[in-house]
Amino acid sequence: MNNINKLKIFNDPIYGFVSITNPLIYDLIQHPYFQRLRRISQMGMSYLVYPGAHHTRFHHALGCMHIMQKTIQVLRFKGVEISDKEENALYIAILLHDIGHGPFSHAMEHSIVEDVNHESISLLFMDKLNREFNGQLDLAIKIFKGEYHRKFMLHLISSQLDMDRMDYLKRDSFYSGVAEGNINSERLIQMLDVEDDKLVIEEKGIYSVEKFLVARRLMYWQAYLHKTSLAAELVLTKILKRAKELTQQGRVLHASKPLQFFLQNKITLEDFNDDVLYTFSLLDDFDVISAIKEWQFDDDFVLSQLCRMTINRDLPKIRLQAEKVSKEEVIALREKFKTEYNLSEKEAEYFVFKGKIKNQAYNKTGEPIHILKKDRSVEDVVEASDQLNLKALSKPVTKYYLCFPKVLLEKAVI
Amino acid sequence: MNNINKLKIFNDPIYGFVSITNPLIYDLIQHPYFQRLRRISQMGMSYLVYPGAHHTRFHHALGCMHIMQKTIQVLRFKGVEISDKEENALYIAILLHDIGHGPFSHAMEHSIVEDVNHESISLLFMDKLNREFNGQLDLAIKIFKGEYHRKFMLHLISSQLDMDRMDYLKRDSFYSGVAEGNINSERLIQMLDVEDDKLVIEEKGIYSVEKFLVARRLMYWQAYLHKTSLAAELVLTKILKRAKELTQQGRVLHASKPLQFFLQNKITLEDFNDDVLYTFSLLDDFDVISAIKEWQFDDDFVLSQLCRMTINRDLPKIRLQAEKVSKEEVIALREKFKTEYNLSEKEAEYFVFKGKIKNQAYNKTGEPIHILKKDRSVEDVVEASDQLNLKALSKPVTKYYLCFPKVLLEKAVI
Amino acid sequence: MNNINKLKIFNDPIYGFVSITNPLIYDLIQHPYFQRLRRISQMGMSYLVYPGAHHTRFHHALGCMHIMQKTIQVLRFKGVEISDKEENALYIAILLHDIGHGPFSHAMEHSIVEDVNHESISLLFMDKLNREFNGQLDLAIKIFKGEYHRKFMLHLISSQLDMDRMDYLKRDSFYSGVAEGNINSERLIQMLDVEDDKLVIEEKGIYSVEKFLVARRLMYWQAYLHKTSLAAELVLTKILKRAKELTQQGRVLHASKPLQFFLQNKITLEDFNDDVLYTFSLLDDFDVISAIKEWQFDDDFVLSQLCRMTINRDLPKIRLQAEKVSKEEVIALREKFKTEYNLSEKEAEYFVFKGKIKNQAYNKTGEPIHILKKDRSVEDVVEASDQLNLKALSKPVTKYYLCFPKVLLEKAVI
Amino acid sequence: MNNINKLKIFNDPIYGFVSITNPLIYDLIQHPYFQRLRRISQMGMSYLVYPGAHHTRFHHALGCMHIMQKTIQVLRFKGVEISDKEENALYIAILLHDIGHGPFSHAMEHSIVEDVNHESISLLFMDKLNREFNGQLDLAIKIFKGEYHRKFMLHLISSQLDMDRMDYLKRDSFYSGVAEGNINSERLIQMLDVEDDKLVIEEKGIYSVEKFLVARRLMYWQAYLHKTSLAAELVLTKILKRAKELTQQGRVLHASKPLQFFLQNKITLEDFNDDVLYTFSLLDDFDVISAIKEWQFDDDFVLSQLCRMTINRDLPKIRLQAEKVSKEEVIALREKFKTEYNLSEKEAEYFVFKGKIKNQAYNKTGEPIHILKKDRSVEDVVEASDQLNLKALSKPVTKYYLCFPKVLLEKAVI
Repeated sequence: MNNINKLKIFNDPIYGFVSITNPLIYDLIQHPYFQRLRRISQMGMSYLVYPGAHHTRFHHALGCMHIMQKTIQVLRFKGVEISDKEENALYIAILLHDIGHGPFSHAMEHSIVEDVNHESISLLFMDKLNREFNGQLDLAIKIFKGEYHRKFMLHLISSQLDMDRMDYLKRDSFYSGVAEGNINSERLIQMLDVEDDKLVIEEKGIYSVEKFLVARRLMYWQAYLHKTSLAAELVLTKILKRAKELTQQGRVLHASKPLQFFLQNKITLEDFNDDVLYTFSLLDDFDVISAIKEWQFDDDFVLSQLCRMTINRDLPKIRLQAEKVSKEEVIALREKFKTEYNLSEKEAEYFVFKGKIKNQAYNKTGEPIHILKKDRSVEDVVEASDQLNLKALSKPVTKYYLCFPKVLLEKAVI
Repeated sequence: MNNINKLKIFNDPIYGFVSITNPLIYDLIQHPYFQRLRRISQMGMSYLVYPGAHHTRFHHALGCMHIMQKTIQVLRFKGVEISDKEENALYIAILLHDIGHGPFSHAMEHSIVEDVNHESISLLFMDKLNREFNGQLDLAIKIFKGEYHRKFMLHLISSQLDMDRMDYLKRDSFYSGVAEGNINSERLIQMLDVEDDKLVIEEKGIYSVEKFLVARRLMYWQAYLHKTSLAAELVLTKILKRAKELTQQGRVLHASKPLQFFLQNKITLEDFNDDVLYTFSLLDDFDVISAIKEWQFDDDFVLSQLCRMTINRDLPKIRLQAEKVSKEEVIALREKFKTEYNLSEKEAEYFVFKGKIKNQAYNKTGEPIHILKKDRSVEDVVEASDQLNLKALSKPVTKYYLCFPKVLLEKAVI
Repeated sequence: MNNINKLKIFNDPIYGFVSITNPLIYDLIQHPYFQRLRRISQMGMSYLVYPGAHHTRFHHALGCMHIMQKTIQVLRFKGVEISDKEENALYIAILLHDIGHGPFSHAMEHSIVEDVNHESISLLFMDKLNREFNGQLDLAIKIFKGEYHRKFMLHLISSQLDMDRMDYLKRDSFYSGVAEGNINSERLIQMLDVEDDKLVIEEKGIYSVEKFLVARRLMYWQAYLHKTSLAAELVLTKILKRAKELTQQGRVLHASKPLQFFLQNKITLEDFNDDVLYTFSLLDDFDVISAIKEWQFDDDFVLSQLCRMTINRDLPKIRLQAEKVSKEEVIALREKFKTEYNLSEKEAEYFVFKGKIKNQAYNKTGEPIHILKKDRSVEDVVEASDQLNLKALSKPVTKYYLCFPKVLLEKAVI
Repeated sequence: MNNINKLKIFNDPIYGFVSITNPLIYDLIQHPYFQRLRRISQMGMSYLVYPGAHHTRFHHALGCMHIMQKTIQVLRFKGVEISDKEENALYIAILLHDIGHGPFSHAMEHSIVEDVNHESISLLFMDKLNREFNGQLDLAIKIFKGEYHRKFMLHLISSQLDMDRMDYLKRDSFYSGVAEGNINSERLIQMLDVEDDKLVIEEKGIYSVEKFLVARRLMYWQAYLHKTSLAAELVLTKILKRAKELTQQGRVLHASKPLQFFLQNKITLEDFNDDVLYTFSLLDDFDVISAIKEWQFDDDFVLSQLCRMTINRDLPKIRLQAEKVSKEEVIALREKFKTEYNLSEKEAEYFVFKGKIKNQAYNKTGEPIHILKKDRSVEDVVEASDQLNLKALSKPVTKYYLCFPKVLLEKAVI
């Protein structure tokens, strides 16, 4: 395939079209590692609340690249020098920033692998691709790791106002139909500038930043941490935990080979050699959901119950509250289930449990969002805002939950 | 025209279609008093900043009626009893709530009439229409005046979360293209309920309320009080003031008869008899803009200068700041202009002046936005919010401005 | 769960909200048969062209119900009598009209089952649900089968301007981003009426009907029959054919139990007893894609090749043309591949083949789209149109294709 | 003002933002000749049918420039060489292509001036501006006149698929809410190319072209030639005709000076010297509507009647039909009105009259829309389409109308 044919466009209902502007980008997108992202949903189990939320990490990554293109155009227009080499590196870095996500990431990070976060795996994939592409990803990796001297480039990839957040808020809002989560990424981008190697927002964009933070906060509570999404994700984590437990006990569960590999082995970051990475690259939402579909009919009561809850959307209840859930309440409720369904303590823990969730709309301790004043001085957005509400938004909100099933089901057979 | 033909629909790019559901509503819309609203822009001079903002009070009033229809549907679905008579009264009241607006309302309220606000004039129009329609507006007027025993109906018409605000934020955002001002009125409406004769929002809608308040705040600073909109509106006020001043001195300015009437007479609320009301009903944006177009060529230097600034969008500068503008600075600047253009003190005051603007996203002293908790208790949204930012939003923000022209222009001739 | 809690709303980015208006509808949606539709994509393999096209038959069915609600509201407003019982039956019928779809329907209809179309299976599901729900689906089934005396109700469910088409065109256009496919369903619905038991469109809606037909035609050629979608679907059909062939030869392929059942047995409509139906109800996109993911590593060269083409989006080329593809060309091309890759004739047929596709924007022989003239006479839209283009649109367009791989791949191992 | 400050952006709800990319463009937009377009509505009287249709020629011209920017980007990406000088000339030409429009163009072209079309006046404005800007518009004017050797540049400005049409269809559809008129200009632009100095569309864009033509046709019949819009425009023409007639008889009507000038003088293209052009530049919608508002109270029965019809939206009826309206019917109807209202024949002709309107979705005799086939041969879109409907669309459709008032009104007084 010659290079001119690699300058493709993708349809995107959000931006109209996303263009591929060089052959290397095309080759990276065509790579099986990247094509895999077509089979990893961006919002995990949220489609059980928002039936339209089936968009993928593939589409999100393309979207990020698109707004990176727009951003570079704006910055150059304002006189920020960005070389062609840097430009390409930024596209590669943003395109691949999420490539390490496994199926249903958060559930996976604590069950399929052992506390390996997706950023580390993204980096492993980048290194592997860099070898395949003869070092053409060098600069992208340098930026991604924060080792490049122009720090604002890292902040385009990863910060509190990066391309990633701008695209996912817009995209998640669009596909789920949670209209309030929509942000004006186009205006935010128009307001971006670089001052003293910092990514900054022009002062007149301050209301848009506020709006962006409020939208993000709303998306957290209304979509990502919605009670039903949360219930579904917690059940999923329990399913994988149970499956791993049974596997460790010697059971061989129906599952795809890659999934079986991760159930049978405790994989830490150190174990991630090229073979493991390749096996990981074969894993996506389809492995997990297909396994759950099979396990509905497993003989293990706990496993089959949890799987049927997921497949038939018969999810447990979640009670959310501002105060901690008392240990006593959990114990009492568990006792009730133990008696009623004749469960062991260990089994009951899979059905009745507590925990907490936390969100912070703006993180004051990390790299701040910088506001560029008219005199070209730079200030943290929290200081620049004319009201106290941004200070308020930087206070983390913690909520506590109690999760328990409405009722357990009859055994199913196939 | 028979009644069935009065059940018309209007196209609305925002809601798709707006339906007229009874013949009386049709007749009110057809009335010249209401048709006049087609010639009164909703956002005044803001089109000088946002070229799309040419939508009218006519369209806004139809939009309000439309969301009132949706709201009544939701409330009835939740078991709130609303009789057919009350339903119609609510449509009439919301349809006519803004009928008293004159051209460029705020400018007008302090120049064309003498401190008569548009709500009072709306009521005069309603009374007049009620006589024409044989008392069919009785209940609507009662609700509008707050004299009906079911108070939540007043709050549908006028409160911090009324149909008016829901429509104008959405509409102004849509036509101006200030995307961040868009609110999810559909979701807000779905969350409405009535408890203990109070209009309330279900607890799960609290993030939408926050978003609504933040959007409103953003629209104030980014659109309604945008520096250029503000400059244009201030110049307009000065134009009308100067025109009135010259008229009082005996000059007869080119102007339509209705406009001349209001320039020649000081009209207070007491003076507003049926004749005055009729003359007022002949007045709209076209009278004002046409006069300004003529006055560009007037012999009075001040008047012609100000008019040309408006017509050619050559507006004065505005400096906005958190602190008061010092008297000294204004005097010094005025001196400069007096010398340079050979102006009297009085003349110079038309060009160089200071003032302040204020906005409060949420008013804690008025009727609060009520949140309906799961146990059906009712709480002020500021108390119910899990973070401090709503408290912050209820603090009024004041900004001070200094307005002065870049340069004055050569005399124009026609 | 009491009945009031069953009156839920769903978010829909297209319509805002979709409401469930009675408890039976809620129970049907909650049923595993219906929840299964969450795992069946509406546009099959089209996401390989349009990365956003991951919406499901679940969402589509809800959308259809929503516009049925709007339609009934409009028809009643115009004086068409529809009883509450009929109303509910219409909701049920439209909700379930597609419930018989299997994964990747068209591929499935000729491989997984033996020429059993999805409508027949929908009816089997409805009958089964009717038994479970004690006959509450009687009227819905009667309408669906065309046995109810009020024929216009059938046409709301199934005709050239039914709720199904209005929703899927709008939805497919929305999620894929093929903006031209968007139709103004709201306007079409506003124009619907019933005359002489026929579903009709008011004359002033004729341009909207034209636009609807042109949009549908565009969606066929630009999305549903897009070269890449077509290639992907053809490959999928070949995969299932090969899998069935190997299974018949005694191989046991990795696959979920339900999929294995359909590979091992030739199931015709007569075989579809309750057990088969239940097994069918366990089958969705996940079974098929997961199997393909496994089969990438199968020892059978043909099967593994085809599977890898799909998973890595390395699809064969399609040449589309107006004239038939000659047998000679196919043979010659096959020979080339046979030699190059050492394939048997039978194997080569899986890679190099020809066929045809057909689309007809308007079908003149079926139930026409009726136009209601001002004098309330009814005319076929083709006659009523003032230009010839609708006649043109009723001419079927056939295109012929030749499909062949760019190159075959190295064997993969896991 | 220094040049960097002239690189402004405008909000546009359709495209997000429109950028000014060079100082000369800024200066042209700031010029009073161009600012005047803010006061000229794009859709004339259509707001009487579509209440949102208040957008202006100013916004349209900016929109055209925006899509010209996109187009040039696409063409350059495909290897078409366009110099910076040519680029700027294209922006200027498209920006100014409509600057010659007067208020309510079509009404005006046959009443205010004597058969002077707006293109000629645009050229006069361009020449005048070129003198003011020292020849910087030379190339733009050359392109606009079709005198530049690269013909495809003219076709970007003026052809059956030019920037003008792409913007106005999209914009008129957006603001009016006639959703079916929306076109996918972004896709059309992506498909543009230049072959053999012809502007062409890639073959795969053919369905988009069809959709574009069908959308344009729909906008004609549903918006531009909608019965009520047509009635309003015909009444407006009659008003201006009557005003001119009365003026010629020696009456001095209330009107702005520029409007009076054009009522008192018969201005042909030859008369258009700089002074006339300047007077013309002072004329906009406000002059016309304000005059009509005054003339409601004029003593002339015909004039006041027609004006009140417009202001109160009490428009005459229009009967549209495929066959000519017979002279006899018109005479009979006129007699009725003459008797009933005691009118002379001449007066009655203002109220009862017939005429015809015509639309042709695609003009086969003009410059065709060219399709670029895969082998880079070029074909007229009508030949390239796989169905006959484009041939159908190139047949002009003529409709005949009869216009007459429902009733005439009582005399009004101010």
